[in-house]
Amino acid sequence: MARVANKLETCSSCSHHSKPIDKLTGVEIRDNFEPFEQKFDIYCRSIWDPKIKSEKTDSFFEGYYMPYARARRADGFSQKDYAFRNAAWHVNNVIRDIEKSGSFRKEKPNEIRKEGYWDYYTSHDEGWHEPYPFESKEEATRDLKKVAEYCGVGELGVCEYDQRWMYKTIFSKEGEGRKPQEIPEDIPNVIVTLEPMDQELIKTVPSALSGAATGLGYTYDGVAIITLAQYIRNMGYRAYGSLNDTSLCIPLALQAGLGEVGRNGLLINEKYGPRFRIGKIFTDMPLEINQPKKIGVREFCDGCDRCAKACPPRAIPFDAPSDHVHSESNINGVVKWTPSAEKCFRFWANQNTDCIICVRSCPYNRDFSKLLNKLWLKLAKSPLRSLALKLDDWLVDRGRLKTSWWWNPELQKTEGKSNSEMKK
Amino acid sequence: MARVANKLETCSSCSHHSKPIDKLTGVEIRDNFEPFEQKFDIYCRSIWDPKIKSEKTDSFFEGYYMPYARARRADGFSQKDYAFRNAAWHVNNVIRDIEKSGSFRKEKPNEIRKEGYWDYYTSHDEGWHEPYPFESKEEATRDLKKVAEYCGVGELGVCEYDQRWMYKTIFSKEGEGRKPQEIPEDIPNVIVTLEPMDQELIKTVPSALSGAATGLGYTYDGVAIITLAQYIRNMGYRAYGSLNDTSLCIPLALQAGLGEVGRNGLLINEKYGPRFRIGKIFTDMPLEINQPKKIGVREFCDGCDRCAKACPPRAIPFDAPSDHVHSESNINGVVKWTPSAEKCFRFWANQNTDCIICVRSCPYNRDFSKLLNKLWLKLAKSPLRSLALKLDDWLVDRGRLKTSWWWNPELQKTEGKSNSEMKK
Repeated sequence: MARVANKLETCSSCSHHSKPIDKLTGVEIRDNFEPFEQKFDIYCRSIWDPKIKSEKTDSFFEGYYMPYARARRADGFSQKDYAFRNAAWHVNNVIRDIEKSGSFRKEKPNEIRKEGYWDYYTSHDEGWHEPYPFESKEEATRDLKKVAEYCGVGELGVCEYDQRWMYKTIFSKEGEGRKPQEIPEDIPNVIVTLEPMDQELIKTVPSALSGAATGLGYTYDGVAIITLAQYIRNMGYRAYGSLNDTSLCIPLALQAGLGEVGRNGLLINEKYGPRFRIGKIFTDMPLEINQPKKIGVREFCDGCDRCAKACPPRAIPFDAPSDHVHSESNINGVVKWTPSAEKCFRFWANQNTDCIICVRSCPYNRDFSKLLNKLWLKLAKSPLRSLALKLDDWLVDRGRLKTSWWWNPELQKTEGKSNSEMKK
Repeated sequence: MARVANKLETCSSCSHHSKPIDKLTGVEIRDNFEPFEQKFDIYCRSIWDPKIKSEKTDSFFEGYYMPYARARRADGFSQKDYAFRNAAWHVNNVIRDIEKSGSFRKEKPNEIRKEGYWDYYTSHDEGWHEPYPFESKEEATRDLKKVAEYCGVGELGVCEYDQRWMYKTIFSKEGEGRKPQEIPEDIPNVIVTLEPMDQELIKTVPSALSGAATGLGYTYDGVAIITLAQYIRNMGYRAYGSLNDTSLCIPLALQAGLGEVGRNGLLINEKYGPRFRIGKIFTDMPLEINQPKKIGVREFCDGCDRCAKACPPRAIPFDAPSDHVHSESNINGVVKWTPSAEKCFRFWANQNTDCIICVRSCPYNRDFSKLLNKLWLKLAKSPLRSLALKLDDWLVDRGRLKTSWWWNPELQKTEGKSNSEMKK
């Protein structure tokens, strides 16, 4: 582990894995910390680990393709719902699956890859032959943000490369399930992006339909990340883009100043709450580094348990942040709110679709472009945060919307029911 | 030509190629009408026709890939401008180029294709095994529009399949440049979609930078069309999606009620003016058919020549609509405003980027979500349309924006110049 140890700067007052930035992010690192191996990710385990893999989990994954979708009459699980959800994922799948889509991966043409997930995107054209001489990091950052906005990126932050959050090994279907991390260690910067997911669709969680919000989020996130990484390469710099994996997303997002972690284990952002997909580009483009920013989430979630109560399999902790791990799918030695990946994913497989009830039920799940929600956020940040929580309880219907009402809002009027009557 | 003749219903009062719908679209068809062969499209001719193909046109196309981009110091043609433009096209290119991206085209794995352009998209997963029993066309259309909106489609109309506008043959790089039309003749409906292009970028036309508006338009249009076509297949219906080609776009858009043709030869739409990309899906999903809609464009453009005056190569006619053709790149026997594709494309090749000065300079190039522009549209539709034109001349700066100002709006303040001083 010389490679990793080499990169982990020590902080005399705490764990030897800690760094000064942890004080700013509020992430406490213990002595037993070790970088994560992707093979223990719950989705990877569903491929190789008999403790996770079952007929139900196989069926869950197969259902993302229509011939295997188990459409039924139940609200939210009809052919319409699966048809839209599976279409929403489609472009993401085309861009992702090297096994299917082969030869345009110029950098790695003969490898089995799952790009954006296990592997960085390689569907790039050759860039410029030398780095563009930006006058300053300010200029490069301004240009990047302008291009990112046009690529559909909702929010963007930059942090320094941090070896602690890189997957120590990447999952592979072959051998022991491990292959080397491909992102070069000498990359200095990480661009972290947020791609918002649709609020209306998420009102129908859990349902096959609501999975369309996730699918579209991944599709647009992938298009944005590939386009932006191509732009950086076109400016003559290195750029390795991915979505969820290759590294842990949330600690990098914290370090890039994009928010704080909530009780549900998700990043909470001031613009989108917990409702987005994260993308990342590892690059040597010279960029201004953002600072972590406390936005009162820790204090708010200390007094709020709405996600934990709403989670049917009780996967979310009711108690304070700790370094407790539920299984090998959680990282060791990091003090935080850690949901049980096993309980969570078992519920997905049982429902036959993904679930983010913890997003639907979160008081931060709001449209913060609206003035009233901006005012609510101010309240949630203040010592009156318990009032903010009460206001959310009183005024916001966080019940599940019938998917038949999503498809045809007219029905809601004729049926004369409120959403809350549909709460599950 | 039995195949075509079979489909062309006669109208006793006019040309034997006319149909009753032409009265509603205002498109007059003459006896010498014949369906278009794609090989005569100006972009296809730039591949095989020595009258068009030159070092400059080759260099124009190559410049969409960075190693061949002729970046220089001129405003709008720097490395930054090419870097963003070429990145904007990138995902579209990945999805498009069968020569590069091979094996995931399950329907046509071994064919050279340019999907979305010469050919329909085949990167689809298997859909549902039987058509969904919609209760009515209204239900199917409502669902389609809901899904389309979430796929990023800006506007959508439906018309009946019309053999007249299908390319009689599709371009092929092999043989005589012709291969058979692949869209089945028994497809009853055509969904026509509009994908808006960015207004700010278009202020910098002509420039390499402004081509990013086109590239992003194509990329998002492609993602939307593939996703929507996959949804239709997932509902158990046939769906063949493409962008520009496989058929003429504008007559189908007219028949689908999406606008009228302007002097610049472009479709003018009430929501986006002339500023969008068109997409199409040929399908047997049962859908409500839209009616053509006159929105006063013919009368307005009769009294306006701003695009014709602004066009450097004088490719746009100053006179009334006619069936005059400039070359084999124009369709025969259709009375309309017909620009010269040869003059237009020669200017593109000379500039080393695409050009839509005719969009930038068009009085309809506005953001019609704004109240003032909605009021302007009412005026442009009324007998006071010449006042609408004068107001546009007086109040709207349609000059070219410096691309350095697009990249850094702060510069504009310090340099203290107005856009109009930059007019070319």
